[in-house]
Amino acid sequence: MTRDLTITEVRLTPILVADPPLLNTQGVHQPYTPRLIVEVVTADGVTGLGETYGDTEYLELARPLAESLPGRSVMDVNSLFGIDLAVDESRVGEAVDAGGLRGVQSAGKLRLSVLSAFEVACLDAQGRALGLPVHALLGGKVRDRVEYSAYLFYKWAGHPAGVPAEPDPWGAALDPAGVVAQARELRDRHGFTSFKLKGGVFPPDEEIAAVRALAEAFPGHPLRLDPNGAWSVATSLKVAGELGDLLEYLEDPTLGTPAMAEVSAGTGVPLATNMCVTTLGEIREAFTRDAVQVVLSDHHYWGGLRRTRELAAVCSAFGVGVSMHSNTHLGISLAAMTHVAATVPDLHHACDSHYPWQSEDVLTERIAFTGGAVEVSDTPGLGVELDRDELARLHRRWADDDGTLRDRDDAAAMRAAEPDWRTPVMPRW
Amino acid sequence: MTRDLTITEVRLTPILVADPPLLNTQGVHQPYTPRLIVEVVTADGVTGLGETYGDTEYLELARPLAESLPGRSVMDVNSLFGIDLAVDESRVGEAVDAGGLRGVQSAGKLRLSVLSAFEVACLDAQGRALGLPVHALLGGKVRDRVEYSAYLFYKWAGHPAGVPAEPDPWGAALDPAGVVAQARELRDRHGFTSFKLKGGVFPPDEEIAAVRALAEAFPGHPLRLDPNGAWSVATSLKVAGELGDLLEYLEDPTLGTPAMAEVSAGTGVPLATNMCVTTLGEIREAFTRDAVQVVLSDHHYWGGLRRTRELAAVCSAFGVGVSMHSNTHLGISLAAMTHVAATVPDLHHACDSHYPWQSEDVLTERIAFTGGAVEVSDTPGLGVELDRDELARLHRRWADDDGTLRDRDDAAAMRAAEPDWRTPVMPRW
Repeated sequence: MTRDLTITEVRLTPILVADPPLLNTQGVHQPYTPRLIVEVVTADGVTGLGETYGDTEYLELARPLAESLPGRSVMDVNSLFGIDLAVDESRVGEAVDAGGLRGVQSAGKLRLSVLSAFEVACLDAQGRALGLPVHALLGGKVRDRVEYSAYLFYKWAGHPAGVPAEPDPWGAALDPAGVVAQARELRDRHGFTSFKLKGGVFPPDEEIAAVRALAEAFPGHPLRLDPNGAWSVATSLKVAGELGDLLEYLEDPTLGTPAMAEVSAGTGVPLATNMCVTTLGEIREAFTRDAVQVVLSDHHYWGGLRRTRELAAVCSAFGVGVSMHSNTHLGISLAAMTHVAATVPDLHHACDSHYPWQSEDVLTERIAFTGGAVEVSDTPGLGVELDRDELARLHRRWADDDGTLRDRDDAAAMRAAEPDWRTPVMPRW
Repeated sequence: MTRDLTITEVRLTPILVADPPLLNTQGVHQPYTPRLIVEVVTADGVTGLGETYGDTEYLELARPLAESLPGRSVMDVNSLFGIDLAVDESRVGEAVDAGGLRGVQSAGKLRLSVLSAFEVACLDAQGRALGLPVHALLGGKVRDRVEYSAYLFYKWAGHPAGVPAEPDPWGAALDPAGVVAQARELRDRHGFTSFKLKGGVFPPDEEIAAVRALAEAFPGHPLRLDPNGAWSVATSLKVAGELGDLLEYLEDPTLGTPAMAEVSAGTGVPLATNMCVTTLGEIREAFTRDAVQVVLSDHHYWGGLRRTRELAAVCSAFGVGVSMHSNTHLGISLAAMTHVAATVPDLHHACDSHYPWQSEDVLTERIAFTGGAVEVSDTPGLGVELDRDELARLHRRWADDDGTLRDRDDAAAMRAAEPDWRTPVMPRW
């Protein structure tokens, strides 16, 4: 036991990673999206990895946090959350929220979204130093594989003409047939057995038709639809009525706990959310009003893996289901999601992951889905290794950017194709 | 990293430890009370310690559990809770509940009360094997000292004549002057700065007088009164009205969530509980009805240290305070309580502990209170060592017992002095 677990260095590397033209109710994904890679190095030279949003606001908080860490132990993750991080409240809620798709924006949530990457990096470093997988540090896995769902998107065949982008082999998906073809492709590649469609893009009837087409193509498989709050209560209830038994759950049909509670009271279809419950402060109202039946946790904005487990405990106490939300992310976060998901007994739904859409990663070896699941690694730490050449290449892309891509803005990306596009006023339908 | 964390042996040692004649609403403590000491041994010869209730029902569950553990890793604490432990439901709720003072009795809670000792023993073994204190395994301490309150009891000078018992240096405390004298003694010995009186023993007016005497003797110090549910709603509201600002909180004035909610609605005095919320299943109703403002966790019946942290997270999400309950326990449990308490940010009240009343322990060195607090140990594991001679001596006492003391029964103990005593029907007042 001659280990020295003291942090001696923290490296932050903002990068831009390729993203296909995936549509949502706010606009379309930009051809490149910012992520931040965090490395925490101990006195013994062990390096732990973490990953979070890379927009400017996150970076500006991450830098002073990184400077404050040397001298602390990687074991001290609880006290990370006591570090005084001044958030410029006046800037919160501007560009960092990708148009509201992550729910309420607040200084507290921004802090947690940054801290989460450091927590994960500390856990990875702990595991590497102690010779233990991260799941063991969280009390041990209760399953050997974590199931993920196929994350289906309406998408264009490519980014708008004239916009620099990476090649896109996926083709368009703009109607039920296109959605089913995409689902088949994702299933064939990765073995997914449940399917989630990102909706809120087309009028509800078109999306209802897409879900029906999925149900016909994949009878008996769990299906979900997520319009990101684009619908009114009445429209939500109409869709719930029409899709009824076809849905495992309906995700964020409408915005805000009061409206979700109204929908919940009027349908037997379970409602899931990663928008009206994204902070501890929102739980009380949502749970006491029975507004949601499934919370989609996201370790990035809940503040890391230990807090994700705590969220699961809160849900369990209230009989609310738990699963996992995903935004564009790379393999470090997929590994982190898999480790924590492996330790949560009450995880009864396949998790979401954008990972199949990411053609680029910063790992020496991509994480594989087999039969729709990721094997839980027993390698010390997260079980992933950084590809420094690739990290450097993606960082150069970030460094060379003139600033237009450093903050994700799906509405701006949409304007490249439709110059008059404005972020829609909700509810759209 | 050549450690082998596989469990090779589990030792269970039931013991009887001396207990003074402390009074509560159900009766009086017996002269000896059963505890169970759990030792989990790894392939490398590391031994982890745990402690829980030692009544027959607990022992009967602990034995098959102990036999099922060899071959598992001490790291796998989450999956402990998935082990199939058949509880004989028909026997639940008879003698093991010490007259109802631990809240609802259920098979699930009995299971958790047994599992908790194994969880703590595994964490102790982990810490010893990895060279880390238990608090570090829980994410690290956020404070260096954990505050405890002086736990005041009405008590007799000694156990009834003719009942074998250890010497008792404390004397009687049966009126306000006796309670204040006891508080002074506890403060002088251990430095406590807050005081909790176990009530429900005398008519409410006498206990109100005792609290007033404490407030006069220790002006400005936090005071609590805990009648273990002995009062009606009306009496609870009357006491709350009379003691008003003198109380930090009123603990379990009445039984059950509906009655507690009524009291809560009628007073501004915060209500604490270790009786109406003692399982996850009881949280929803109690929190949505605002029946309690402080939950007194107990790692024994909540299922260990990780689950105590989860309970704290549930409380935090609902704006409910958290502190710690105590029943008769020894130093292993005090160390466990201190480690987990050190990691909970929202612990805003001093914890309860019976430990000052235990003249016997199974440790080579007793844990000390300094200034009313226990220093958080940074020694690997819990930071305590087993005194095997003392363990053997206290086990012989258990083995030699004819069965009358192997199940705690405060009403039976009372009958040694008052032959007609029956467990009072609640509410007593």
